[in-house]
Order: sequence, then structure tokens, then C-alpha cells
Amino acid sequence: MPARRAAARADPPRARLEVEERREQLVALGMELFSQRTYDEVSIDELAQEAGISKGLLYHYFPTKRDFYIATVREAAQQLLERTATPEGMDPLERLRAGLDAYVDYVGQHGKPYAALLRSGVGADEEVTKIVDATRAAFAARLVEAAPAGAHGPLVPIALRGWVGFVESATLEWLEQKKKVDPVALRTMLMKALVDVVASASGC
Amino acid sequence: MPARRAAARADPPRARLEVEERREQLVALGMELFSQRTYDEVSIDELAQEAGISKGLLYHYFPTKRDFYIATVREAAQQLLERTATPEGMDPLERLRAGLDAYVDYVGQHGKPYAALLRSGVGADEEVTKIVDATRAAFAARLVEAAPAGAHGPLVPIALRGWVGFVESATLEWLEQKKKVDPVALRTMLMKALVDVVASASGC
Repeated sequence: MPARRAAARADPPRARLEVEERREQLVALGMELFSQRTYDEVSIDELAQEAGISKGLLYHYFPTKRDFYIATVREAAQQLLERTATPEGMDPLERLRAGLDAYVDYVGQHGKPYAALLRSGVGADEEVTKIVDATRAAFAARLVEAAPAGAHGPLVPIALRGWVGFVESATLEWLEQKKKVDPVALRTMLMKALVDVVASASGC
Repeated sequence: MPARRAAARADPPRARLEVEERREQLVALGMELFSQRTYDEVSIDELAQEAGISKGLLYHYFPTKRDFYIATVREAAQQLLERTATPEGMDPLERLRAGLDAYVDYVGQHGKPYAALLRSGVGADEEVTKIVDATRAAFAARLVEAAPAGAHGPLVPIALRGWVGFVESATLEWLEQKKKVDPVALRTMLMKALVDVVASASGC
């Protein structure tokens, strides 16, 4: 690796920053394009054109279209987790409500890639599946933390994971119905489902 | 139809029956193999060897491994729908209970392919996705039929589809936990979740 290290040293810090910034700009652009159309519908030519750079330069940042797509999925998952994060001191039910509002809002804004991801069109990709699974696991971990003290027993993790699937399927149906149901009504139902199912799984 | 009838006459009935029977036997064998290992783990060579036929003859029935796999998925979906079917005259809650018992039982017996299918390993395949979606739609249609008279409003279809996702995710977690929860306790929770969520979606 000495060659690589020498190359890194040779790179002035400003240039490295520019590479990082440009990469982020490209990912932001990709997220926008994939928000409107699916993976198959967006071509590398179009990506390069929209970014105002050559195809060769785009390949310099992302060796393949798949690499580029995975970077946008990773960024979207990160954003979803950040936007739905709530302050630790908050009341658990308030946290849940705020987190779900942010989730429904995010899904409403990024309906197309969200549906494509969960309906496993491109989601088949092993790397993408890993990102989706890690995101689900992060949500489940938050739920476990927020669960009331009385929530225990072997059925509780089954109920929590089931509820994550409930939220995914319900929001997909909501998108297919063109979001005609008010997001607050949807969130209220999602929230009540969690409370009920945890109570039922805990046997209380 | 006269042409078809003529062709049928030309084929000795016994031979046709044999082809059909052999195909069914191969699908049954495939289901057994895919119950224990995933698509990637089972080779065409092994399939032919287990069936006691040449690879060439296997390809005669199924041109590719994918065709063979799709035939087993289709058969499994069909079996799942048949086994979970309940008599029309039965009380709706009784029907739900019986259907869910059969579902959990089937999942418990076919854990490996069920998980592989829903976790979109090979499930990425468009044909397979169609079968999975059609099976979900068939379950959803049964639920709509069985829903109580008071269940209406725009949130109800969202709740029903959400609950199908709940059942899928909960049963996957149950499988990962090596089925240590009693199937009746699992079914009871799944059933209560449906009743609660439909009540909540109907605003009652």
C-alpha cells in the first residue's frame, strides 16, 4: 500500500475536501432522481448530464451504476434514521408519536424509492438488503428501548418485529392509495397498533 | 377447441398422465430439497441425482433451474392457500383462528424456503415476486370477506395489508428464534392484532 499512502499525502487537503463534497452532491442528486423514477429508469448518461460532468468523471466517483445506487440507498437510510430520532429525555409515547410523524412524512416525500426498495425490485441486491435489514434492526432497537417496563416475555420481540413489518406494509398501501388518508390518522393507527400488540405480547 | 381435442386424442392418455405425474413428483422433490436448503445451495446435478433421472431428462421437464424453482414456489403458494382455506359457513373468528393455525403450522414446516422467499434472496426474481404478491392479495381478499360488518373506512385496507406484513415479519422472527414460542401463543397474538387493528382503523 505505500503507493496509495504516497498518493494520499500528495493530495492537498483542499482537493480531498472537494472530492468528498462532490461525492455528496452527486449522492444528493441521485436521491432526487431516484425519488422520481426507479433504478432501471435512470441511466448513467442522464446522471452525468444532470450533474454537469462527463460519464468518465462520474465513474471516477462511483465505478458502477450499482455503486452509485447503493450510496444513495445508504444515505437515504441514514437520513431516515436521523429524521426519526427523538430526544432521549422525552416521554416514550411522545417519542413514538414524533418518530412516526417523521417517518410517515419521509415516506410521503420519497414514496417511489421507498416502495421500490421494500418491494425488492432492485432490493434483491445483497448490499441493499443488508442496508434495509440494518435500518430495520436500528428501528427495532429503538422500540426495545422505548418499550414500557411491563413489556417482557418471549413474544415481545416477535411483536416488535411484526410491527415493523406492519408499518412497512401499511405505508406501502397508503402510498398506493395516493396518500388519500391523512398522515396523522395513519400515524395514530400505527401507534395504537404498537401499543396494543406489545400489551397483547406481554400478556397484560 | 377441435384441434386441441384432436392432439389430445393423438397422445395416448397414459403417456400424458405419466408426464404430468412425473412433473408433480419432481416438484414435490424440489419442495423437499428447498425446504432444507436455499436455491443457491441446491444444484441441478443434485436434483437430477435425487430424482434418479439424467440431467438431460430433468431439463426436458424444466428448461432451467429457475423454471424448476418457480414451479416449486407456485406449488408451495398453492398449498399454503389450500391448507389455510376454511369452510364458508364457519363463524368468522373461528375461520380466522383455523386459518392462522394452518398458516403457522405450514411456516413451521417450511421455514427455510419461506424465509428465503420473504427475505428476497432469490425473491428478487420478478416471477417469484408476482407469485408472492398474488398470494398476499388472496389472503387480503379473504380478510376483506371475513371482516366484521362495522369494518369500513379508508384506513381499513391499510390496516389489513399492514397486518399481512405483521404476520410475515412476526413469523420470520419466530423462525429465527427457532420456534421457541408455542405456535398457539403466536397465533393468539396474530389474531388479537388483527381484531385490534381493524377496530382501530374503523374508528370503533
